[in-house]
Amino acid sequence: MINVFEVPEGRLSETISAWEAARDYLEEQPGYVSTELHRALAEDARFALVNVAIWRSVDDFMAASRAMAENDLFPEVEGLGVNPALYRVIEGAE
Amino acid sequence: MINVFEVPEGRLSETISAWEAARDYLEEQPGYVSTELHRALAEDARFALVNVAIWRSVDDFMAASRAMAENDLFPEVEGLGVNPALYRVIEGAE
Repeated sequence: MINVFEVPEGRLSETISAWEAARDYLEEQPGYVSTELHRALAEDARFALVNVAIWRSVDDFMAASRAMAENDLFPEVEGLGVNPALYRVIEGAE
Repeated sequence: MINVFEVPEGRLSETISAWEAARDYLEEQPGYVSTELHRALAEDARFALVNVAIWRSVDDFMAASRAMAENDLFPEVEGLGVNPALYRVIEGAE
């Protein structure tokens, strides 16, 4: 799962705190594997935060994110744009 | 480095081929470590492709991407939106 965040000016730390609250819940859910929150080096990056999380299955992730939404566990951040979507790696090179 | 692609309808395979051409060049450059191209499972995902690459240093990446641009090594794809930016992982949980 990759979530690309469009963070309004001045809301970065608020968004990181909201992300931490959601992560604390999600990491306890069945099928959670790992997550890495990436912060843009440039202050003017279009997407200040990108989260890349790994889940055991689509169903595990869907169940966890549904429960998170139902329990309102991702604190509201005014003007925040979130773009969560499921992906699979189609090409990798080391 | 994370690159978030906004892929126009019908241009996915063309974009993947362009990405492969760039990857073939970049993976030979000093400081390249690894890359993973992620494809959205949903056909209507806003960002159909997200590339997550790891480089040894900012300078290594900047040199390689400058050379790629100067040599015009990323084939043009009409209407393609690219959003490359450098990130660092600020939070991770396993």
